[in-house]
Amino acid sequence: MITPHSPLFTDLYELTMIQGYLRAGINEREACFDLFFRKNPFKSGYTITAGLENALEFLENIRFSSAEVSYLESLGLFENSFLDYLENFRFCGNVHAISEGTPVFPLEPVLRVTGPLDQCQLVESALLNIVNFQSLIATKSTRICMEAGEKSVLEFGLRRAHGIDGALSASRAAYIGGCSATSNVMAGKILGIALGGTHAHSWVMSFENELEAFRQYARVYPKNSVLLVDSYDTIKSGMPAAIKVGLEMRQRGEKLGGVRLDSGDLAELSCKARKMLDEANLKDSKIICSGDLDEYAIRDLKARGAKIDVYGVGTKLVTAHGDPSLSGVYKLAAQRPPGGEWQMEMKISDSPEKSTLPGIKQVWRMSNAEGEMIADLVELDGEKTQFSGKVSGYDPLPDYDEKFYDGVKSAEPLLKSVMSKGKITARQPKLKKIRERARIELKKLRPAIKRLTNPERYNVNLGKKLMEQTVSLRTKKQGNG
Amino acid sequence: MITPHSPLFTDLYELTMIQGYLRAGINEREACFDLFFRKNPFKSGYTITAGLENALEFLENIRFSSAEVSYLESLGLFENSFLDYLENFRFCGNVHAISEGTPVFPLEPVLRVTGPLDQCQLVESALLNIVNFQSLIATKSTRICMEAGEKSVLEFGLRRAHGIDGALSASRAAYIGGCSATSNVMAGKILGIALGGTHAHSWVMSFENELEAFRQYARVYPKNSVLLVDSYDTIKSGMPAAIKVGLEMRQRGEKLGGVRLDSGDLAELSCKARKMLDEANLKDSKIICSGDLDEYAIRDLKARGAKIDVYGVGTKLVTAHGDPSLSGVYKLAAQRPPGGEWQMEMKISDSPEKSTLPGIKQVWRMSNAEGEMIADLVELDGEKTQFSGKVSGYDPLPDYDEKFYDGVKSAEPLLKSVMSKGKITARQPKLKKIRERARIELKKLRPAIKRLTNPERYNVNLGKKLMEQTVSLRTKKQGNG
Repeated sequence: MITPHSPLFTDLYELTMIQGYLRAGINEREACFDLFFRKNPFKSGYTITAGLENALEFLENIRFSSAEVSYLESLGLFENSFLDYLENFRFCGNVHAISEGTPVFPLEPVLRVTGPLDQCQLVESALLNIVNFQSLIATKSTRICMEAGEKSVLEFGLRRAHGIDGALSASRAAYIGGCSATSNVMAGKILGIALGGTHAHSWVMSFENELEAFRQYARVYPKNSVLLVDSYDTIKSGMPAAIKVGLEMRQRGEKLGGVRLDSGDLAELSCKARKMLDEANLKDSKIICSGDLDEYAIRDLKARGAKIDVYGVGTKLVTAHGDPSLSGVYKLAAQRPPGGEWQMEMKISDSPEKSTLPGIKQVWRMSNAEGEMIADLVELDGEKTQFSGKVSGYDPLPDYDEKFYDGVKSAEPLLKSVMSKGKITARQPKLKKIRERARIELKKLRPAIKRLTNPERYNVNLGKKLMEQTVSLRTKKQGNG
Repeated sequence: MITPHSPLFTDLYELTMIQGYLRAGINEREACFDLFFRKNPFKSGYTITAGLENALEFLENIRFSSAEVSYLESLGLFENSFLDYLENFRFCGNVHAISEGTPVFPLEPVLRVTGPLDQCQLVESALLNIVNFQSLIATKSTRICMEAGEKSVLEFGLRRAHGIDGALSASRAAYIGGCSATSNVMAGKILGIALGGTHAHSWVMSFENELEAFRQYARVYPKNSVLLVDSYDTIKSGMPAAIKVGLEMRQRGEKLGGVRLDSGDLAELSCKARKMLDEANLKDSKIICSGDLDEYAIRDLKARGAKIDVYGVGTKLVTAHGDPSLSGVYKLAAQRPPGGEWQMEMKISDSPEKSTLPGIKQVWRMSNAEGEMIADLVELDGEKTQFSGKVSGYDPLPDYDEKFYDGVKSAEPLLKSVMSKGKITARQPKLKKIRERARIELKKLRPAIKRLTNPERYNVNLGKKLMEQTVSLRTKKQGNG
């Protein structure tokens, strides 16, 4: 469900273009496409990649069923030879990718797809859909979880997510970004994410009064009851009833897991609730808060001294509130005719920021002796660069200014081979590992770049060779048209 | 895909609550839940309902597979009798709903679900997910399509949508709101929506130059070529090449469908492009524009005199830019024990705006002699109200002020029976009909309420009986706790 394998999961123009490539006899030309984005979401200083595992599964399994081919036939746009060709369509290309859970930056190829032009073209829409959305949510999740600090964050966005896959993909990406559990049972089953949850107001309203409702809930869940205390009046009625039940549970040798606050002034209410729990000697019972939370609300709650142990975050996480899309694109960077030489390609455009970087590229991440990330260098793949001491790079736009970086100790090539001739070559890590990677890699990023607001910019520069090729191709293309 | 039937498409707490209802012996109590929202999205004056057809399909088909029950067993939360119960779970309740494509307003029940408490509870998350998202996008779509006026709007948001179902559901809802076609081939196949599209920059870059690329495209699609002219320089290179090909096509008795502008200043470029096409006597060739468009960008383009025939709208439509979630909720409004009387229920809450309206309700839409909508009245179902001449209603919050409406000619009950004992009773209209309904119903709404910014508020009032019951229950609950 999270990885649909139908090739109809595409924009119509991919199919019309491919029929055109076949007609022009250039479909078997080898092409290189880059998937990259131009702007970090949420005015963040970084983006966390996610979705690769699902993207690769899609590529490995994509097939046209005969029902799908019949539907395309019914459109009256495609000739028989093309429909026959679709019946046998397989993706047989190669993919290099930056591992899921890695901080990445504008202009860096996150996926590099090479293979026959037609095959690379067909998969554009699906790859973008998968990687754009999951990277967006993983990024949002790191922002929320970093603000929450050591407190755990529970994702429960299902009811406000964009459709079922919007919810499922969001649960996956939210987990990568640091959430500890989800309320989405399907995500639990399919992705193995821990499940969590409390109860709804309807539970409370189904009994005579709150006390009775809480008692009943504690009886069914003696090990892990979290009671929702805001159905009528949190402090006057919900909390006293929860405490009464908590004390009864203790007498039976059980434990009240905690209380959940879902409305009102959470900072004030959480302090009062904490005090009431502590005075009743229910110090182990936690306070869970929910209600339109995001990184900014959490920062505000903490600044106001809120006593919260767990944040329940839904809507604003899974819908990427503030910036509901990542502007990832998939652009042709090079091609070669069978038996010929690679030829670099770039789009110039009337909007300079929409230009692309030509050639088959690698992304180098430079670090200092302490392992802290210094800057990234995008260079043509195979170019030898000295990565020690002082290293220079060039601004991608508009004037290609040269920049120097001191104290470079090492550089890691981020794009790694993950698929060869349509087969996954590198087994993708388990979700927990990806989450751990995101946590570790983010630690290597300077705090100023991780700031919630007005972060410093992390430099992504071009290597010398790529800069020279870009300048020369731009000049040539503008003359050429 | 757009309607997953798995009951795991739920929040964990629905399942834990149901086990609790069973234990407390109240699961067969009859309940009435309202699905409603508290705020129009996008600061709009209205919301367009959508998703009902998919919601009903979900309810009719929901089943637990044995694999799903086994997964739940593995969580260690559920006892055997409950797992057995799940194996036989069916939804056998009744649903009243407001037809898809109807303008609706805060506090009005859009869906009213009655049936055994456990069954109504289980489906909460899925119903909310489906109705929230589709209503959100249908609303956004009407805003964009109203700004675009007679011009047709093509939806192509697949690559930025929230997962595959985010894309598919968005295509459905965007169509309901007025889009004429989608680029999403899957939406074409599953939903029967017309497909549309042009070609990408990669097509242009795959040939020696633009002229050659356009010629090849026109050769393959002699009936419907739209050429993307911004790969290098729209006015100096793209347009002259497109015109050359357009004239060649005419000589062959074919027609250049149009050109697409995707970057730069679209107002200025479209005027220049129109002039160039007209001067070449290609007056029938259309100008299609795309690139981060939404209702505000279209308004701006029109104000600046842009010459655009078709708008291609993607990201900002399918991700509901500006307000990526509709705050729909699903709340218990009444319940009765087997053989007993209906008892009204309401949530009070520490945030007054989070209170709910008790009882089994109907929504009445009052119109004047010209068929214009005057205001809506929410009243207890079955209450007799005189809907002619001067009608009075009460503000829902906070002081229940009385309001009077003159010139009421008729009133229509919006909630209609669509499912009885788990079976769909009213055949849902075809997508095209729903789209037509949205167009017609919106015409009945005063222009001031449809304004893009600062719309007037459309009044939703309580009927006398509902107001009295709400006040009395609030007093009782606050004393009760």
